[in-house]
Amino acid sequence: MRNIKAVLAYKGTNYHGFQRQNNAVSVQGILEDRLSRLCNEEIKVNGCSRTDTGVHAAEYVISFKTGSGIPCENIVKGMNSLLPEDIGVTRCEEVSPDFHARYSCKGKEYVYRILNRPVPSPFMSDLCFHYPYKADHELMNRAAGYFKGTFDFSAFCGALGAKENSVRTVYESRVERQGDIITFTVSGDGFLYNMVRIMAGTLIYVNEGKLAPEDIPGIIESRDRERAGVTAKPRGLYLNRVFY
Amino acid sequence: MRNIKAVLAYKGTNYHGFQRQNNAVSVQGILEDRLSRLCNEEIKVNGCSRTDTGVHAAEYVISFKTGSGIPCENIVKGMNSLLPEDIGVTRCEEVSPDFHARYSCKGKEYVYRILNRPVPSPFMSDLCFHYPYKADHELMNRAAGYFKGTFDFSAFCGALGAKENSVRTVYESRVERQGDIITFTVSGDGFLYNMVRIMAGTLIYVNEGKLAPEDIPGIIESRDRERAGVTAKPRGLYLNRVFY
Repeated sequence: MRNIKAVLAYKGTNYHGFQRQNNAVSVQGILEDRLSRLCNEEIKVNGCSRTDTGVHAAEYVISFKTGSGIPCENIVKGMNSLLPEDIGVTRCEEVSPDFHARYSCKGKEYVYRILNRPVPSPFMSDLCFHYPYKADHELMNRAAGYFKGTFDFSAFCGALGAKENSVRTVYESRVERQGDIITFTVSGDGFLYNMVRIMAGTLIYVNEGKLAPEDIPGIIESRDRERAGVTAKPRGLYLNRVFY
Repeated sequence: MRNIKAVLAYKGTNYHGFQRQNNAVSVQGILEDRLSRLCNEEIKVNGCSRTDTGVHAAEYVISFKTGSGIPCENIVKGMNSLLPEDIGVTRCEEVSPDFHARYSCKGKEYVYRILNRPVPSPFMSDLCFHYPYKADHELMNRAAGYFKGTFDFSAFCGALGAKENSVRTVYESRVERQGDIITFTVSGDGFLYNMVRIMAGTLIYVNEGKLAPEDIPGIIESRDRERAGVTAKPRGLYLNRVFY
């Protein structure tokens, strides 16, 4: 059996997240269906991460085992001709048998994109969160800096599993503006459920004066979800890079 | 009665063009419905141009008459809250009674966007034509230059009305590349049915060596639709600017 690593991108708007579900369309479900057709055998796909409904991936890694001898470049071409237009395969390679998209993953980078101008954009409505009010990206950047480090991020978690370890290390966390687009970039060794969206919502609270940048360490320390900001809409969130 | 000019943008993917139709969803139909609700009277909208199914507008101008006293900035806000996400109002102003979005229009600029890389983009599938083969934008630019001037453009017309004057003046016509995106920009005093899409298809024929840049003048002179290239897909086309 060959072990294949493939790098994808997808627009999450029309999917109930990555993970296969019984009564909803998922990216994993579509991939397994098309790969099974292409390889003429049942293929089980491992994904690097769960993503929520409406969340996008600019880079997403899967791995799967196959007995077929189809060359990797033909897997890319074949999949791109079989897949719907909102999922694309970027590249594909044969890897050692022990590589696993999820368990081999060493870290991830997410970006959260905000369209910051009075009027919405019909071309970006699925691809950014539209925030029509004045935004101070330098203030937001100052707040974002406090996320860097190794902490118990329970206050930034939507729903914590009973025995789940909620300590994560955030390597990079910054806010930048380019024209009308404000981007929050955050990388780390792993992320809790809804963690990046709650961080993004907290940065918006900071912009609105509901919180100060200096409040962030206390919120982290409190482990109290109620003290952080709202969970920002999924449409602005992208899994951007996956590290191995 | 006030005469109002409004500037919009829309993503054409889900519409059967601008013009109201009986059995299909059109941008005009949606606008008239929402404006009538907002102004509490029946509103008839004049658009600057017909556009085809799937064609976008980065700038589109409408005009309409209303007895309501709603301030222009509230028309912008009200419409943006009532409209679907793929149509947005950018600005709005009261104009003299003789202004008409279509008849007052002095010229237009279109752009045709091509994503030129081997793999498609799930984020741009509706917004660009994906062309995976090698493209020489300088060769295409040389061909595009031959469109400039005043000519009978019958060879670049999808379906000509029996008594329609097919002479148009093209002011600007050029091809540029920025990263993976090739843009064909063309402005003129008016355009025939499918004219820009046939021009774009002809530039692709030039790239593929089916035609040489120097063939363009002879094709124009022939007035023979068969000698020009294919009609390029609507998804790459944008009405980009409207001149008054």
